[in-house]
Parts: sequence; structure tokens; C-alpha cells
Amino acid sequence: MAAAPPSPKRARTSKDDADDKTYHLLYHPTIPGRGEFIRLIFEATQTPYVEVNQKSKDEVYAVLSTSPEQPHPPVYALPALRVSTKGSSSDDIVISQTTSIAEYLGHELGLAPGGPQSAANLHARQLALTALDLAVEAHDTHHPISMMLYYEDQKAESKRRAADFRSSRLPRFLKHLEAVLAWNAVDADGRRGKGRYLVGDKLSYADLVWWQVIDGLHFAFPNELAVRKPDYPLLFTKFYPGIKDDEGSVSAYIASDRRLPFGDGMFRHYPELDRESGDA
Amino acid sequence: MAAAPPSPKRARTSKDDADDKTYHLLYHPTIPGRGEFIRLIFEATQTPYVEVNQKSKDEVYAVLSTSPEQPHPPVYALPALRVSTKGSSSDDIVISQTTSIAEYLGHELGLAPGGPQSAANLHARQLALTALDLAVEAHDTHHPISMMLYYEDQKAESKRRAADFRSSRLPRFLKHLEAVLAWNAVDADGRRGKGRYLVGDKLSYADLVWWQVIDGLHFAFPNELAVRKPDYPLLFTKFYPGIKDDEGSVSAYIASDRRLPFGDGMFRHYPELDRESGDA
Repeated sequence: MAAAPPSPKRARTSKDDADDKTYHLLYHPTIPGRGEFIRLIFEATQTPYVEVNQKSKDEVYAVLSTSPEQPHPPVYALPALRVSTKGSSSDDIVISQTTSIAEYLGHELGLAPGGPQSAANLHARQLALTALDLAVEAHDTHHPISMMLYYEDQKAESKRRAADFRSSRLPRFLKHLEAVLAWNAVDADGRRGKGRYLVGDKLSYADLVWWQVIDGLHFAFPNELAVRKPDYPLLFTKFYPGIKDDEGSVSAYIASDRRLPFGDGMFRHYPELDRESGDA
Repeated sequence: MAAAPPSPKRARTSKDDADDKTYHLLYHPTIPGRGEFIRLIFEATQTPYVEVNQKSKDEVYAVLSTSPEQPHPPVYALPALRVSTKGSSSDDIVISQTTSIAEYLGHELGLAPGGPQSAANLHARQLALTALDLAVEAHDTHHPISMMLYYEDQKAESKRRAADFRSSRLPRFLKHLEAVLAWNAVDADGRRGKGRYLVGDKLSYADLVWWQVIDGLHFAFPNELAVRKPDYPLLFTKFYPGIKDDEGSVSAYIASDRRLPFGDGMFRHYPELDRESGDA
């Protein structure tokens, strides 16, 4: 179990009753994976949370149960977030699907750029969903045939899919993100994101979700990114280093040993799937 | 351009000012694809909408423009929904990502089972996202390597991925949906969905999104579904035929020739990717 430090929360823009809530993140214990998108939101807002992983099997099994008698509807896959309200466990809610958890917490913890139906929030939601689409495509470069097979048993197909991912899919997503940063950059006193933020003029859940994907891509495809970075200057000189270096609590977490390293999750580094070094 | 008939809208549970809004769906003209999830929502609520497709290139190009001067942020991919409010085009919003459009319209048109942060809506959102995950996996059975290549150029990989999809992935998703229907079935006067609805006791955007996916699976994998149907009785005897047969306006649309047939979109029928006939 890894819990965020019990430091004071920063000012909230939304519900004050969030203080009465306890957040339990249910996920795998050894990989950043999809759970990391949620962890970053807790860390950026200095929100205490309890990490329930497969060392605490009972609670995980309870959430994954499909019994019609359980209080919450069935969960398809982890991560799941259990939100407990002080004093009434029957009001617990269980949320799953990564982007849905991220948006839910965005509204609860002041990381949404507007109300749920606002143009700004709908933009943040689109960005979070698109980030996860890219993450799934990055995953499928090493598992293009089956999640039930080892990489080694689908390596030929992986090489073919990874080549397409690097030449066609990845640039399409990065181009989109650069265009979003440019659209939102504004200033000469119209302010907005200045290349640092995707939506509006401050950090939102969309930034954190995208940051984690870009970080994962650095791990998985370092050679490819090294070649492509110059094409996306706002992304790689403002946005990505900005969140890593300048945001107090999230950058401290990123630099800490509490953050799980990438390994054999969604983002994996197989040199033969990356661009060959020096291959322009 | 295909527009829904200008019949009276049914009672709304949300914003009355929706009457002042004009909905423009931007999508491809010849396939149901991701646009069809949105069309079903308009049809089920008898909401007039304008279909802007690639015959009307100017508006599509305007939405896909990445110019920093355009009023709305860049769209990554279609479908997109332009929402115009009477009298002020500068307040137009443009929404993309299929499930986000579906949820947005759910709240506007009375097809959301609760407010955005409610447990019921978060459940509907999870279901819509999971349905699209399955749709993407169905798509990837015929394009496991690259969207830029013809099926024929990735046919060997397709056969391998489709075999895994049918034996492993598809049953996992269908089992989840059956469990959700069972969890929500209730009654003996606790009411709720009775196998007909996924969330609560009436139609929601989650039902329509899932219905379209199940219908697409019938088109793509008829032999596989024929064998598996008995394992998921609520899904295949209550939910799927229920929406098709019993909901006035959506069933009329489904039976009409306005609905585009499946063909070469996300769901495709290649006999060699389906279970062999009679192969149990």
C-alpha cells in the first residue's frame, strides 16, 4: 500500500464535501499502467488516497465480484476507484474506466477546466480519451495479436505493427497535441495555456493524462522520439518539461521513488520495436 | 444529408433550452461507423439533427482545421458534433470522441440516468467506454497491423487476431454485459432494468451504444454469436431484441432504410475471420 503524504490539500474550486470522502484506488501493485493516470491526479492535488492492490485481495475481489447482491454494478477491468463517504458505506460508489475516473476526480478535486457540460471540460475529456487511445495503440505494438500470448509469440507481428505505429500513428497523435497546444497558447495578454497547458490557463486532468502517455512513449520508443521531437516544439519544450519541472506537488512525486518505473505494462521498451539508433 | 423527421420531441428530463440548439453531426457519409452511435441517440429522442458529411466538405474542413484562429479547439477525428445556439455562432461548441458526444447528448436530451457525477451516470459512462473498447477490438480483427493497409495485406495476422478475439476477448465482454444486466434486473417490485436496460429502469445512452455494438457483432461474426448466444440469456433474449422491437422511435429508425447498412467500417464480415459454420 502506497499512500500520498498527508500534507495539506491545495485550494479547491469544486465541492467542499470532498473532504468527507475517502478514495481507494484498486489496481495492480507492480506497474504504473492505467493506475498511474489516477495517481498523478491525487498527487497533483495532494489528496490522500489508499492504494488497494493485489496484496489486499479481499477488497479487490469484492469490487470485481459480479454478484447481483453486491451494492455496486460490476466492474469490467481495473483500475477502479472506490469513493467512500464518511459514515455511510452504503453510499460508496465504485467507478471504473480510466478516463472516467480521471474526469470524476477532476471535478471533485479542482482539476477540471469547467463544469461537466462546458466546452472546456468537453475538450479536456476528448483529450483524455485520445491520450488513452494512443496508449492502447502503444500497448498493441507489443501485443498486436493477443493479450493472452507472450510477446515472443507475436514478435513478428509486433515488428510490423510497431513500424506502422512509429511512422503513421504516432506522428498523427503528436501533431494533434501540438495543434491543441498552439490553439490554446494565445497570450499577448489573452493569456491561456502558453504551451504549458492543453485547456485554459492552468493544470487540468487532461494535462496529467497526456503527460503520462508522453512519458511512457519516451520509455518505450526513445529513438523514435529523439528524432521526432523537433517537429513538436510546444509539446517537447513547454508542455512535457513544464509539468515535470514546475508543478510543485506533481513534480515532487515524479522525482520520488514512490512512483513506479515503467516495465512490462502498457509501455514497454523492446529495442527491436523502436527506430534503429541513428536511423533518420 | 439525412435529417430525422421533424416529429415532436419526447419529454425531456434536462435542459429546456435544448430547443434553442441545432445539432450538426459531422461524419462519413457511407458507413454507420462511429457516427451511428450518435444517430441512435437523436433517433431515440426524436431530436432533429443535420448530418454534415463529406459531400459538404467546407464545414467538415472547417471543423478539422487546426488553425489557432478558429473558434473551437482542434478535433482529432470524426465524428464531431457542432452545437449551435440560436443567434450566436460564436458560442458554437464542437465536441469529439464518440462516447463524449453520446454522454453530452444524454444529459441534454434526457438519456442520461443521472447527473454527470452521479453513480448511475458514471456507470453509464463506463459502459459506453467499454462498448467502444470492444468495437475497436472488433475493428482490429480485420486491421491488426495498420489502418493504412488493405485487409488483404494483413490477412494472416487478421486470422490470428480474430481467433483470439472470438475465443478470449468477445466472451469476456459479453460476460460483463450479462452480469450488468443481471445486477440491474432486480424486480419483484424493486423494479430497475428487468434485463431490458443496463442502468436504472429506462433507456440511456449506454443502452444505445451497446446495442449498436451487439448489432455490429451480429453482422461481423454471425456464426460465433449463434454459438455463444445461449450463454448470455438476458443479453440476447431481453436487451438486444427489446431495444430493436419495443422502443417506438428507435425501432422505427432501425427498421427504416435511413439507417446505413454495415459494410466496410468498424464491423466487417469476412467469413474466414468468423467461426466456421457448424464448428462448435
